[in-house]
Amino acid sequence: MESPLVVASNRGPFNFDRGRDGKLAARRGSGGLVTALSGVFERDDAIWISAAMTDGDREAAARGRSMKSGTALKTRFILIEPDRYDGYYNGVANGMLWFAHHFLWDIARSPTFGDATEKAWDDFVEVNRAFAIALAELGDIQPVYLVQDYQLPLVPGMLRELRPDARIVHFSHTPFTGATYLRVLPAPVRDAILKGLAGADLIGFQARAWVENFLLSARGVAGIRVLRGGRVSYGDQIAVVRAFPVAIDARAIRDTAAEPETGQMRGEVRAWKGNEAMLLRVDRLDPSKNILRGFLAYELFLQRNPSWRGGVKFLALSTPSREELPAYRTYAEDCLTEAARINAELGEEDWIPITVRVQEDYRYAVAAYDLYDVLLVNPTYDGMNLVAMEGPLVNRRRGALVLSRNAGAFARLGRQALGVNPFDLNETAAAIRDGLEMSPEERTRRARGLQRSALAHSPSGWIAAQLRAMDEVRPPRRSR
Amino acid sequence: MESPLVVASNRGPFNFDRGRDGKLAARRGSGGLVTALSGVFERDDAIWISAAMTDGDREAAARGRSMKSGTALKTRFILIEPDRYDGYYNGVANGMLWFAHHFLWDIARSPTFGDATEKAWDDFVEVNRAFAIALAELGDIQPVYLVQDYQLPLVPGMLRELRPDARIVHFSHTPFTGATYLRVLPAPVRDAILKGLAGADLIGFQARAWVENFLLSARGVAGIRVLRGGRVSYGDQIAVVRAFPVAIDARAIRDTAAEPETGQMRGEVRAWKGNEAMLLRVDRLDPSKNILRGFLAYELFLQRNPSWRGGVKFLALSTPSREELPAYRTYAEDCLTEAARINAELGEEDWIPITVRVQEDYRYAVAAYDLYDVLLVNPTYDGMNLVAMEGPLVNRRRGALVLSRNAGAFARLGRQALGVNPFDLNETAAAIRDGLEMSPEERTRRARGLQRSALAHSPSGWIAAQLRAMDEVRPPRRSR
Repeated sequence: MESPLVVASNRGPFNFDRGRDGKLAARRGSGGLVTALSGVFERDDAIWISAAMTDGDREAAARGRSMKSGTALKTRFILIEPDRYDGYYNGVANGMLWFAHHFLWDIARSPTFGDATEKAWDDFVEVNRAFAIALAELGDIQPVYLVQDYQLPLVPGMLRELRPDARIVHFSHTPFTGATYLRVLPAPVRDAILKGLAGADLIGFQARAWVENFLLSARGVAGIRVLRGGRVSYGDQIAVVRAFPVAIDARAIRDTAAEPETGQMRGEVRAWKGNEAMLLRVDRLDPSKNILRGFLAYELFLQRNPSWRGGVKFLALSTPSREELPAYRTYAEDCLTEAARINAELGEEDWIPITVRVQEDYRYAVAAYDLYDVLLVNPTYDGMNLVAMEGPLVNRRRGALVLSRNAGAFARLGRQALGVNPFDLNETAAAIRDGLEMSPEERTRRARGLQRSALAHSPSGWIAAQLRAMDEVRPPRRSR
Repeated sequence: MESPLVVASNRGPFNFDRGRDGKLAARRGSGGLVTALSGVFERDDAIWISAAMTDGDREAAARGRSMKSGTALKTRFILIEPDRYDGYYNGVANGMLWFAHHFLWDIARSPTFGDATEKAWDDFVEVNRAFAIALAELGDIQPVYLVQDYQLPLVPGMLRELRPDARIVHFSHTPFTGATYLRVLPAPVRDAILKGLAGADLIGFQARAWVENFLLSARGVAGIRVLRGGRVSYGDQIAVVRAFPVAIDARAIRDTAAEPETGQMRGEVRAWKGNEAMLLRVDRLDPSKNILRGFLAYELFLQRNPSWRGGVKFLALSTPSREELPAYRTYAEDCLTEAARINAELGEEDWIPITVRVQEDYRYAVAAYDLYDVLLVNPTYDGMNLVAMEGPLVNRRRGALVLSRNAGAFARLGRQALGVNPFDLNETAAAIRDGLEMSPEERTRRARGLQRSALAHSPSGWIAAQLRAMDEVRPPRRSR
């Protein structure tokens, strides 16, 4: 018999709002993490714990019980004071750790750590502790804990103290930054994160590169030893560090694509596109997604290939993100400004080179996936990147994929994609041209290969692989 | 009998100018690299090859002969076209590789590689080739080649092709960046650098951390294998990768300190300082030196310790550097602006908190070393940092050293220094206070320890260690 699962993540798969009928109703969230974990939705022995986000969530949290979501999964919420949540989430997780893992600081000038950092770090520790305590309380069911992502790196160590024989997996959906760059963080922060993760039985990353970075970082921490075979020991605990690249839920995305509402949006996109070729990008407005250089590379492509002017349109679907952080607001503005400049300089009366839609609409993205000729996925660094898998799965024009070699997804899709260095405008511009001008045979061969790669893995397989590894590392107790 | 030595570096230890008497006269250059290599000055079997910088150098290069410098060492110059030198030096070495090794890019926006990069890279390859050819021509004397620094990473591989049995050491005075960050560089650039270095018999770095970064990077290159014991193989060649932290020339610096001209400058500094305590920093105006955060941390210290207002002065000796690069010009301006702002906000009629002297005057720095109470060395990242060793050697006030944990020198001096995370203003401000308020006993103990560490190593010992390692890796041929 399988162990029950307990998932912990900052944001849960469902949020609750009070409907017109006065009842709390579940609303499914989107995002890569939830997609990756969709394998647990149909398990009736699974509980998912996350931070309360909506008033409905908070109400559920206050009542202290699991909520039903229309799936077999039970969800629970942790109530966190807004000020504390701000320090944990905006201050440390997004303001520091995301920047560290994606190399986003302008090192000559930022970050500068001071009192605000220390306060935010206290918040971060306390929120991680609240998660650990909530998880420990579920320990009697002897679950496998699946602790998710860079917001909760301290949970494995804290949970280990509370439940020494707990079976704990931590998985990072982001890259793990290099050992030298990690030294930007205050030493106590860095050490706490590495020691916290080392409390798990299994430490998972999206790609081998992030495993290696973690191991090199761990070597620099007093008390942690790196053993052969990608293992780290800390105290009595030994953790195995391994890559488990996430997968997308092919059936769910194809179901979405087949829905009439999506078809209507597809009609809209088709009308916008006309007879022209279509370049597409879909991302959060995050500096690591490299939207600016994407526009610049497209501009360079148009300058070098004037015959394509008027013959191609670039649709950028951009989801607002982390607007609490000034660097994100500035970046979003710069992206829009740059697109407007390019449109002003290269556009013609009946042709606008770039259309940016700032919206959060997953369905619209699925509609657009269907129609692109080239999909541009050029993050500076990215843990995995699901758009690179979702697009080829839905697309029906044998569209080409231009893919950054610094995305974790490149390890899976690199052979069929047009690989680029995301900092290299020449190479990216040439890849856009190659994608548009590829022969039908090559286009078909690559598109099929991309589909096959995306279909070869599933969210349930991803979880199963972690659970198999867990059984090897720490077998379930017989006494159950 | 020892093998003769041939040193290659971008900038040589002497430059030549035509004096009033019409003859070419040698002028000794400064800088960390020349200091580190001063162990070869008195060897009459040593030749040093560098790029011609002055008209006198170019004249000497055109004549094609070795120049005498007043030491036993012979120097030779390579003539490089100004435009080619610009691409090699400003375009690639300082504009790309220095930024890569010190994590200096603002990744969301810079770098963007394009045609200019490709042209500069061609220049870089050709200049490295010119060095390799010049070195190969000296192969008949069967020397040990000591190839220096990040400007010449391709030389070992190129020289190996020309002289398969050459005995080649490459030493990097900078950090070696992390494997993930190195992926910012265009793939052909990254691969060429790693393969070029792998052509050496011995690859030296300032610190263990840089050795580890190099090895992890090398693992990602097709054709290079990383073997046990810190070795890399490429083709038929096996290179040993090891840390050889450089040393300073204690006698030379104490001689300089004892000269009357230095004494006069010391008088100047003493007069400026008055009865107040003195904080000192000495660096090139380079973003990696972290001058801005140094000023901000001092400001924070003054705000938190108002009793020190009027009681301490901060002298910043700042050498102009790389003014061809816009990022350097902006950084230098920002440093001066920030100091002026702090002076305006905190200064009083008879007290200016910060004095910045923008000048290139090694003697003045030696004079100032004598008098500081606290020396602030807080680079964001630094291969080694010689100021941290020079200061304590000269200082006669048992001054404290505040030292970044991200400087290679921290491995040698960390126990006696006040270690700081260079991004942490709180920690740096507290360390400045601790340095100023330290008890006489602790002050004495630490200052003695710092002196001992600085004295325990010498430039000749540094070279001897590399030559011993070379003898193990590739023994000299018997036939000589």
